[in-house]
Order: sequence, then structure tokens, then C-alpha cells
Amino acid sequence: MKLAKKDILGIKDLSREEITLILDIADSFREVSTRKIKKVPTLRGKTVINFFVEASTRTRTSFEIAGKRLSADTVNITASSSSMVKGETLTDTAKTLEAMNPDIIVIRHTAAGAPHMLARLVKQSIINAGDGAHEHPTQALLDMQTIRNHKGTLEGLKIAIIGDISHSRVARSNILGLTLMGAHVTVCGPAMMLPRGIDKMGVGVTHQIEEAIRNADIVMMLRIQLERQNENLFPSSREYANYFCLNSRNIRLAKPDVLIMHPGPINRGVEIAPEIADGVQSLILDQVTNGVAVRMALLYLLAGGEE
Amino acid sequence: MKLAKKDILGIKDLSREEITLILDIADSFREVSTRKIKKVPTLRGKTVINFFVEASTRTRTSFEIAGKRLSADTVNITASSSSMVKGETLTDTAKTLEAMNPDIIVIRHTAAGAPHMLARLVKQSIINAGDGAHEHPTQALLDMQTIRNHKGTLEGLKIAIIGDISHSRVARSNILGLTLMGAHVTVCGPAMMLPRGIDKMGVGVTHQIEEAIRNADIVMMLRIQLERQNENLFPSSREYANYFCLNSRNIRLAKPDVLIMHPGPINRGVEIAPEIADGVQSLILDQVTNGVAVRMALLYLLAGGEE
Amino acid sequence: MKLAKKDILGIKDLSREEITLILDIADSFREVSTRKIKKVPTLRGKTVINFFVEASTRTRTSFEIAGKRLSADTVNITASSSSMVKGETLTDTAKTLEAMNPDIIVIRHTAAGAPHMLARLVKQSIINAGDGAHEHPTQALLDMQTIRNHKGTLEGLKIAIIGDISHSRVARSNILGLTLMGAHVTVCGPAMMLPRGIDKMGVGVTHQIEEAIRNADIVMMLRIQLERQNENLFPSSREYANYFCLNSRNIRLAKPDVLIMHPGPINRGVEIAPEIADGVQSLILDQVTNGVAVRMALLYLLAGGEE
Repeated sequence: MKLAKKDILGIKDLSREEITLILDIADSFREVSTRKIKKVPTLRGKTVINFFVEASTRTRTSFEIAGKRLSADTVNITASSSSMVKGETLTDTAKTLEAMNPDIIVIRHTAAGAPHMLARLVKQSIINAGDGAHEHPTQALLDMQTIRNHKGTLEGLKIAIIGDISHSRVARSNILGLTLMGAHVTVCGPAMMLPRGIDKMGVGVTHQIEEAIRNADIVMMLRIQLERQNENLFPSSREYANYFCLNSRNIRLAKPDVLIMHPGPINRGVEIAPEIADGVQSLILDQVTNGVAVRMALLYLLAGGEE
Repeated sequence: MKLAKKDILGIKDLSREEITLILDIADSFREVSTRKIKKVPTLRGKTVINFFVEASTRTRTSFEIAGKRLSADTVNITASSSSMVKGETLTDTAKTLEAMNPDIIVIRHTAAGAPHMLARLVKQSIINAGDGAHEHPTQALLDMQTIRNHKGTLEGLKIAIIGDISHSRVARSNILGLTLMGAHVTVCGPAMMLPRGIDKMGVGVTHQIEEAIRNADIVMMLRIQLERQNENLFPSSREYANYFCLNSRNIRLAKPDVLIMHPGPINRGVEIAPEIADGVQSLILDQVTNGVAVRMALLYLLAGGEE
Repeated sequence: MKLAKKDILGIKDLSREEITLILDIADSFREVSTRKIKKVPTLRGKTVINFFVEASTRTRTSFEIAGKRLSADTVNITASSSSMVKGETLTDTAKTLEAMNPDIIVIRHTAAGAPHMLARLVKQSIINAGDGAHEHPTQALLDMQTIRNHKGTLEGLKIAIIGDISHSRVARSNILGLTLMGAHVTVCGPAMMLPRGIDKMGVGVTHQIEEAIRNADIVMMLRIQLERQNENLFPSSREYANYFCLNSRNIRLAKPDVLIMHPGPINRGVEIAPEIADGVQSLILDQVTNGVAVRMALLYLLAGGEE
């Protein structure tokens, strides 16, 4: 099995078949992390650079562990320590990294489109680990894998995505992926957090959390950026919680076997009540586990999948 | 040989037999670091996360080298780069790390008890690399190994620990370990730095460095946190040194074959005179070398000791 | 083939024969980074510490990749995270690192002479990755390798080095190496950036970029530290560029087959015009590629070259 792609820049570029292939491979890699010896020699002698211009321990650690379990050499570059970035154009940084002959560059960047620019510039494979408010394809893939593992399919599921839809690359990538795979998505959030024209992405839209949750198979909560209060996107975290926190009352509107997701880190009591986050129907930690598997699958498919 | 423990949280939890086992294994690992090929395949395919919420190059480097020499995959997470920690509870961070399936999490934290909380929450082994002013068990173990290597035993030795006893996790862990192993410990420091009731830990107490040193087999100096001057714990480093610096005069009160220890980094001329730190009876660098060996022993015992 | 040296501190200490040996070995390692499996087992079980007290992603990444492709265990220590350095003398830090039994310590430091001090203090091999305004030997070696690969020899070439000669360790190491290998070097920069007595190093000196470039085989541009404007070394980057930027006009004075170099990161439009940096005669990215090869060669020669 092989992915006929040089890069993973966004869900937008993937077909149903490609997503299915990635999820299938991810399923097979999930088992490696439960072995006594959690390591396969697949990517021995390959170099993976984790280039994180925007801080992220969670995603960087997930990629680093994925690389190491495949026996790749992993090198971390972070913005704070990166004199490459100071006074140097992203183009020049990209060409410099290319000249060191890595096999894959994983990039997280504050600017939307930065990974796409890198992908055009360098011959190596680029994986987008989150670019501005644009896309976060590995998050959407791990979310889809998590849902598929529990529900058997994505087709026909009713999925609510709740929170700051406008600024969320997680929401954007998931909407693209879930609708492509045949799920029915409804997005929900306060007016300031719902982009105009979002309905053109093929999703339902509502400002009422109850309406979004009703009969849902999956409820996916987004992280609220509390620092955005200053931008007047919402008045206070308490008021936000009054209207949009998933709790033991409103969750009853969903299907009895509803499953709860959140990309983390969670603000307990703001976007999700503790009893829901920690409940038996929560898949939050499953998502983290699948994150390693999905990233192993992508590193494998891009760096040596044909062998 | 096997340690029937999931975690290493403090010396408080260890028996004489367990300490002896750890020191024996550490002795056998000391040799690995002197080989031409400083590496054994013991922990191949195991993942060790060094999770340092409080900065520490010395201890982090020691654990990282220990892990790599055992062929483990090591992943560093530091607080400054850790968005996991920002706005996320330690509980959620712990569960997130757990979900990535590491084998061992080494944690240093500013809060006393943080490693214990982690240990209850996650199924993986936790090693406390220093928690607040509470415990620093790997430091005490490497200190005990260093003493045992030079004196043959800990039993019956007269050991002086001098400095800020109240705020020192090194002192606390060493008092627990050394008294358990049969040494006679005397602690010494200015009144502000000696906790009330410290004598109940089975140690002698004095404010006079001369009294502490007299006839000592081992003098263990603690690092003075110079930034604590603002808290009025002591008036100035010069005045502290007048009363509590180990120097070529007061050391004569100790046994002729007295050995000098310090966990580092040292403030030369404050808690220890340069000629003493660099003298032939100083074990300071031996402590660093044994640090790698003790950490290899603990990683080995927790992750695969039975094999 | 063996290098009879414990350390690589500066080009000053190397003979023609030693430089030739290093470049020959680097040529042979260049190929490893183009393989499908970019890894040789040469330094398995060796520990390389990258100790960077001055920030540098480019050089640190190059050394880290070089170490990993030789199968060494690499450990990064940076100043910002280094409590070893805070309140600890460099001597004590050096002895602490020594006690952990690494094989090679790569050091970058803001203070000239820091690597030399380390080399005297510890038994391990030290590689100077840049010390203050003193030397940057691995940069000069990779520059010489790059020139030799393209011109066949260094002997008799006319080489212009243009920029802030006074504060550039890259200039200093290159002047030493290139003149030793038989090249004719001319340095050029504004008066404030040319050290008195520089002609005693056996180089031509001029304030006119046109004069420096005329008939040159190689033009090597130096990075301008824009933050130095406050020191009144130059009035503005625009004025600097007016006089000292390499562009499509002044480059015509050089030989038709002139090659352009720059250690990076480049300030486009300040010291070098974009069309020159990106032109077919630019070797800038080749320098980056050779950086990995030269560092592999040095790690190999210092840690196990005899085998």
C-alpha cells in the first residue's frame, strides 16, 4: 500500500481512499505501542525534523515518540531556540533544512500556509502539524481513527463540533474530513466564533448547544483560548460556560451511546464539565493514543511506505 | 533480582534491602560508562519521558544519558516549552502522557508531592527527580553509592550535613536513607535553616559547623540558594560563609580520612572553599559519575529488571 | 587514517596535512547523507554532548544530525535551560560534564577561549562550534571543502572575504585556513569593521568592494549583525548595502566562473542581493550540506578514527 503524495498539508488534499488507507495503517501501528518492545526498524536511517515555530509540547511529543518507535532519527527545532528564524526568511530556513538532507519535515507555524510554502520549496516530505487557524490534518485524522474504531464507520454519523469554530484549525480539518467520509456535521458556537458562510462547507449551523447535541453520535468540543477574552470574542469564561459547556444535563439530548471528544488540553468547567471529560463515554485519552499511531502511519507512508 | 515497586518516589518508601539492591545494580552499571562502547541493549524499545517542570540541566542530562546508554528512547519535556502545562491540570497532563504509552516518566516539579500524584494516576513507573523541598531520592541514592564505594559500608559512619536543611530535598532524602542504613547523621545550619523537630528524624542537630564536623567520616555540604537572601534566611553570602563555609581550617576537626561531598552546582567560597572542593578528599565529581549509574539502575529495575 | 589530536579548537592548530585529511574524510561522508539509509554504525555507544551557551539552531542541528548519522547518542544542553551554568564556573560545568563520561563535547560559547579552557580541563575531545569573535573552525573547514569540491584545489585561488572582519570568527578561521592552503585572500569592509594589523595575517586589505571582488575566484560574504547598528559600527543597513552588498553589478568584476559563499543566515538585500544568493554560482546551500559531512568527519576522527 502506498500513498501517492509527497506531503500531508491538509485534509483538503486527501481523498476518501487516502484517508481510509491512512486510518488502516494507523490501526496496524496502534499495536506497536502496546508491545513490550515498542519499536520497529521501519524508518532506520531516516531523519525526521520536528520544526515547531509555534509552541506545542503535546503534538511535538507525539511526533517525536512516533518517529522514535519507527527507529527514525528525530531532531527538534523550536522557535525560541531557533536563530535560523530570526532575521531569516522562511524560504531560506526551508532551503537550509533541505540541504541537511532530512527525509521528513514536520512543521507547526503561526502563519496559515507556511507548510504549503515549504512543500513547494523543498524536495522532502512536509507534514503540517498545525498552521495558524488553517488546518491541523493529523488531529483530524486521529479524530477520525478514534471515531471509526468505536463506531465502525464514519458514514452517516451525526457529529456536533462546538466552540470557537472561526479560529480553530481542528474544526476546519475535521469538517473537511468528516463530511468527506459521509458524516453529518453540525457546528455550534457564539456568533463571534462562527465564520460567515460556514454552511457552504456542508455543515449545519446553530448557536444553541442543545440543538447541536440533539441525537448526536459524537460531540466534539473545542478548546477555548482564554487569552482571546481580550479580543472581546466572549465576555468571560464563566459566561461562555453558561451557554456552551458540555455537561451532564445537556448531554442527555444526545444519543445514549454518544461519545465525547476534545483535542486537549481541556479547560475543565469551561468548555467541558469534569464529569463528562472523565466519564466512560469520553474518548479524550484514546485520541492521544491514536495520535501516536496516526503519526507513525504518516511518517511510514511518506518515508518508506512502499517497502 | 527485582525491585517489587512500580515507582521511586522517595527514600521514605524504600527498605534497607531495596536500597542495597539498587546500589548493587548501580555498581554493576558504573562499568558500562567506562567502556569503549558505552551502551547495552537492555531497554531497547522502551520509552522514557523526562518531564522537567523545574529547570535542571544536571539531573536531566544525567537521566538522558542513563536512558540512552540502556538503549531506551528518551523524550525531553521542559516546562518552558510545555503548553501541556499551561492551563492544564497536572492530572490531565499525567493522563495525556500515560496515553502515549511511555514505560517510565521521570518528573521534576516545583510542588512537593507532584510525583506521588502522578504515580497514583498513571500505570507507568514514575521516578521523582526532585519535588519542591520534599525529596530527591536519586540524589540520595547516588550519594549513598558514592560513600559505600569509598568506605565499604554506610553502617556506623559519622556524617555531617551542613547548610539550608529546611529547604533541601537533598538533605531530607539523605537523612532518611543514611539513618536507615545505620549511619549517624548530624545536621547543621543557621537557625532559620533548621526545621523544628528535625531531631525526631534521628539526627543530631547543631548550629556550630565545628561541632558537626568533629570526627566526621563524611561532610556533605548543601548548595545555598543565593536568591533566598531576599527572604531574609541569611544576611549575605559573605556572612553565611564566615560561619558555615567548609574550609581548610575547620575540616581539620574531621577524621583525617574524611570525604567531602556536595550535590552541585557549588558556590565556591560560599558553602565550600575552592581548595576543599578540588582537594583529593572531595568526591564531588564521583557523585556526578555515580548519578548516571544509579539512574541506569533505577530505569533498569523499573522497566525490565526481571529479564 | 588518524588525526593525532584530542581536540578541534581552531584552524590555527591545524597543519595543511591535517586539513587535507579532514576534507578527504568529509568527502567520503558526504555520500552517507544521500543514501536511502543515512546511517553508519561507526560511533555506536559513543556519547556526544552539544553544549551551546550561545544560541544557534543551524550549527547545533548540523552537529546533531552528524552525530545521529554516525549512530552516536547525542545530548543537547542549551544555555537557556542550563542551570549548570547559572552561578557555576565554566570550570565546574566542564568537570561535571566530564564526570558523565561523554566521548566528545561540542561547545559554542560567547567567550573567546572557552573551548580551549574546556580542552585543558577535561580528558574528552572538545570541538569548538564558535567561541566569541575568535574562531569557528568547523565553518572554515566546510567552506574549504565546498571550495575544493568545486575548484579542485585551494592553492592559488583569489578569495575575497567581505563584511565585518573584526567581529567575525568565520572570517578569522577562514583567513587562517585559506592562506595556509595557499589561497590569496583579500578582506574588505568599512573602516570600523577591519581590525588594525589584519594585513599581518597575510591578506590583502581594502575598503572598496570592487577592488576586493576584481578577478576573484570566490567571494565570501559575511553576515551583518544588524543589532550592531546601536554600536555605531555602521549607520544603517541601507547605507551598508549601498557600499558593501554583493549584487549583479559588482559581481561582474570577478572571474566569470566566480563562486559565491555565505555562512548564513543571510540578510537579503543587505550583504547579498537575492539574485546573487539564489543564482547558479551560489554555493550557500552546498555549504550547509557540507557542514553535516565535515562534522561527521570530525566526530569520526576524534572518537574512533583509528578503527
